[in-house]
Amino acid sequence: MCEERITTMNKAQFDAVCETAKRAAVMHTAADTLEWDERTGMPHKAGAYRAEQVAALRSEVHRIRTDSEYGDALAELEAGLDDLDPRSDTASTVRELHRDYERNRRLPADLVRTLALATVRGQQAWDAAKKANSFSQFREPLAEILKLKREQAACLQVDSDRTLYECLLEEYEPGGCEQQLRETFAQLREPLVALIAAIQQSDRQPDLSSVQGPYSLDSQRVLSRHVCEAIGFDFERGRLDETSHPFCTTLGPDDIRILTRFDKHWLASGLFGSLHEAGHGMYEQGLRADWFGLPPGSYASLGVHESQSRLWENQVGRSREFWQWLLPQAGQMLGEPLKSTDLDEIHHAVNAVRPSLIRVEADEATYNLHIIIRFDLECDLIEGRLQVDELPDAWNARYESDLGIRPTGDADGVLQDVHWGAGLIGYFPTYTLGNLVSAQLYESAQHQISDLDDQIAKGEFSALLEWLQNNVHRHGRCHDSDSLVRAVSGQGISHEPLVNYLKSKLENLYGI
Amino acid sequence: MCEERITTMNKAQFDAVCETAKRAAVMHTAADTLEWDERTGMPHKAGAYRAEQVAALRSEVHRIRTDSEYGDALAELEAGLDDLDPRSDTASTVRELHRDYERNRRLPADLVRTLALATVRGQQAWDAAKKANSFSQFREPLAEILKLKREQAACLQVDSDRTLYECLLEEYEPGGCEQQLRETFAQLREPLVALIAAIQQSDRQPDLSSVQGPYSLDSQRVLSRHVCEAIGFDFERGRLDETSHPFCTTLGPDDIRILTRFDKHWLASGLFGSLHEAGHGMYEQGLRADWFGLPPGSYASLGVHESQSRLWENQVGRSREFWQWLLPQAGQMLGEPLKSTDLDEIHHAVNAVRPSLIRVEADEATYNLHIIIRFDLECDLIEGRLQVDELPDAWNARYESDLGIRPTGDADGVLQDVHWGAGLIGYFPTYTLGNLVSAQLYESAQHQISDLDDQIAKGEFSALLEWLQNNVHRHGRCHDSDSLVRAVSGQGISHEPLVNYLKSKLENLYGI
Repeated sequence: MCEERITTMNKAQFDAVCETAKRAAVMHTAADTLEWDERTGMPHKAGAYRAEQVAALRSEVHRIRTDSEYGDALAELEAGLDDLDPRSDTASTVRELHRDYERNRRLPADLVRTLALATVRGQQAWDAAKKANSFSQFREPLAEILKLKREQAACLQVDSDRTLYECLLEEYEPGGCEQQLRETFAQLREPLVALIAAIQQSDRQPDLSSVQGPYSLDSQRVLSRHVCEAIGFDFERGRLDETSHPFCTTLGPDDIRILTRFDKHWLASGLFGSLHEAGHGMYEQGLRADWFGLPPGSYASLGVHESQSRLWENQVGRSREFWQWLLPQAGQMLGEPLKSTDLDEIHHAVNAVRPSLIRVEADEATYNLHIIIRFDLECDLIEGRLQVDELPDAWNARYESDLGIRPTGDADGVLQDVHWGAGLIGYFPTYTLGNLVSAQLYESAQHQISDLDDQIAKGEFSALLEWLQNNVHRHGRCHDSDSLVRAVSGQGISHEPLVNYLKSKLENLYGI
Repeated sequence: MCEERITTMNKAQFDAVCETAKRAAVMHTAADTLEWDERTGMPHKAGAYRAEQVAALRSEVHRIRTDSEYGDALAELEAGLDDLDPRSDTASTVRELHRDYERNRRLPADLVRTLALATVRGQQAWDAAKKANSFSQFREPLAEILKLKREQAACLQVDSDRTLYECLLEEYEPGGCEQQLRETFAQLREPLVALIAAIQQSDRQPDLSSVQGPYSLDSQRVLSRHVCEAIGFDFERGRLDETSHPFCTTLGPDDIRILTRFDKHWLASGLFGSLHEAGHGMYEQGLRADWFGLPPGSYASLGVHESQSRLWENQVGRSREFWQWLLPQAGQMLGEPLKSTDLDEIHHAVNAVRPSLIRVEADEATYNLHIIIRFDLECDLIEGRLQVDELPDAWNARYESDLGIRPTGDADGVLQDVHWGAGLIGYFPTYTLGNLVSAQLYESAQHQISDLDDQIAKGEFSALLEWLQNNVHRHGRCHDSDSLVRAVSGQGISHEPLVNYLKSKLENLYGI
């Protein structure tokens, strides 16, 4: 830890709050380990007891994090921060831990418990409703969750300038502002819609057979592991496993686990899924281990987290240079049709743009339209401008107007994502924030690493990873997303770099 | 839960202590899950933080289990047990929880912590010393552990009639008596030595090629899974994985995990290892789930646990009838040489008796001699009759006198087992207790299930498993090992059934 704090703060008190936060992190990561196990290999019937174990650990975390002595010490420490650089490790630790404490203590234990139960039931109801392709089964649980989330937001709404939605968004994106998101998304939307329309009218459409395979799952596994190792995911401090809903989880400073899924008939699923999760994983591996469990050793926000996954998946993984390096090896590993695909073909195939119904399968250009729809709808739901009963129609109308296609049923429409059923409201915009930030960061990296494209064409990724470590990872939560992007690129979060990046790549590929 | 208690006890108080014990079990099994993960797939560098997580959870368990209010409630409840059947669920719950509480609270927190650290270091030192084939590296850590274990035993020695050794044994084998073990082991030793000598002089020795393979690991995996399923291990409530040191662990009432290892050149390792661990696993799966975390839903003792593993491994798995069923299928799965091995050959091969240096590779007849040596030596160490410096010579002398072979070095001698380095003193005799009990139980099962041999020859194991569930599993810890065996067989733990079983099988195979 750095020395800056000793002169200005009560060192013993600072160390004590750090110890408390680290104790909570030990229990928190233990719970995450149990959840990782649940989503990989836990026996079929073990779910009920596993839920008890996880709940007991999460309660213990909550108990530690809402202890009033801990809160008092944080308040005292924060009052003495005046002369410290607000981005210093010490000031950030105190400020962010205090912010978390204040959020946690404002939530009545009853509400926390009711919400936990409602979201478990919500996910189960969502699952059943999706299988039955029927929103009506999900209507009541969702209404209950929305009611509770509004209550939660009201508890958190200390400052009446903040909207209810912002109070929820804050959980995932510290400092996030609804109005600013709305403006940025509008600026992004217009050029994207124009670009997508031009692409649809182009007569230069990609041949997708090289992505459709089929390729054996075993050879795809070997390829994914190879690519993750090549870009710098450290397998001595992590694992790559398989699951039905890919994710990344941190079980300790040296234990970062990524999970993906493979599809015989869609190479992109496993390969870009692995790149995406490895991007998340390398962010976690790049955080400072000596600050593990404390804000300087934690990710800045979900938006910044997503920027790291999207940067490796898209800016790197869907670049021509990346395939210049990978194609010969991947062709050897997977065989035909990839083996006889040429560089231009594969580059176009992995950048195919097609308006589609399902967010997680969307291409880079249409993806953000999916997010903007969800953002608008969830704001309306929380603020009471839209009723739950009106949601499916509102959803379908927006898909028709924004993407030109209409869901065939609720399963590929309003029921496609688990988030709302899990109580994750205010989470969706972090996906688009991630896309914006990834483009901004990559633009800066390209300016600062002069031969970056050449390096990638040779399969050399270490300079880029090191740049990300120095400019993003090592700062942990000392910055929020906007100030981080500003520190790196000289401007706040903006739509321009993403639009420029997509236009320059896609107009070229589609001959626009 | 049964009604018996309501009339005689304070129901609310009883329920409260049960809730506390179950809360400890939730944390305990969470820690066990983290340890399972550590021994299966945890990333290489994640060990240090994992140790912190497990230690935090174990401390929480200790805190819950030594809470003085909990102890007071147990003492009050136990004082009111007079008119209850001591083997009833209620009486057993109170008695066993109180016994555990009394043991736990007698250990000063300092000693618990020092011992925990010393045994972590002890295992590391053991590992290094074994690799270096040099006892001298292990001498000091072992001396430290023995000193602490003597202190621990002294804390637990409430009754001066109990030896220090018994106070340690009690942890693994409730009610175990050193003198009685010594007598039983002496009665077992004499006929075993005579039997082994006769076997060595026989000119009818088995051909081991059918066990030596080589067989592919994948086909062995398929075989092991098939056999575990056939005997009744429930894969909806459990898993079979691989590890370097096989074990079985219970992560919840419906989550019992067994682990084995496979050797291309030794079929017995994986196959009998799987049967052994599945035996442990089916015991855990047969415990009453509604009493999970409480004595009626816990195993009786390590000796009884080992009886379940050994029964499936040996009495079943090394029987002629078992191979009558398995050989044709196993031959198909593994191919040559097993495919053209006949029943008599494989039956003799899996029952080959050869004095050897390594306990875990020992056959059924010589195995107990390995245990008796360890039992004698660890009693002498704890009681101060043997000094640590004298241990290697004492070990080698006993192998020469008891088994007729002398270790070539410390690694295949005194350093072969981790137990002492892990502080597990008083644990070894439970292995031989398990062998004795397995033979006694199986003798009873054969009397009570008239066509058991025929069933096994047809691959029907459910009657035997059900018999074990009814006669052993469902009793949990309402019995100790001796009273359980007495309830099933009409006599206490004795050497005779094991000797009779081994003599009848081995004299026949070796033509004695």
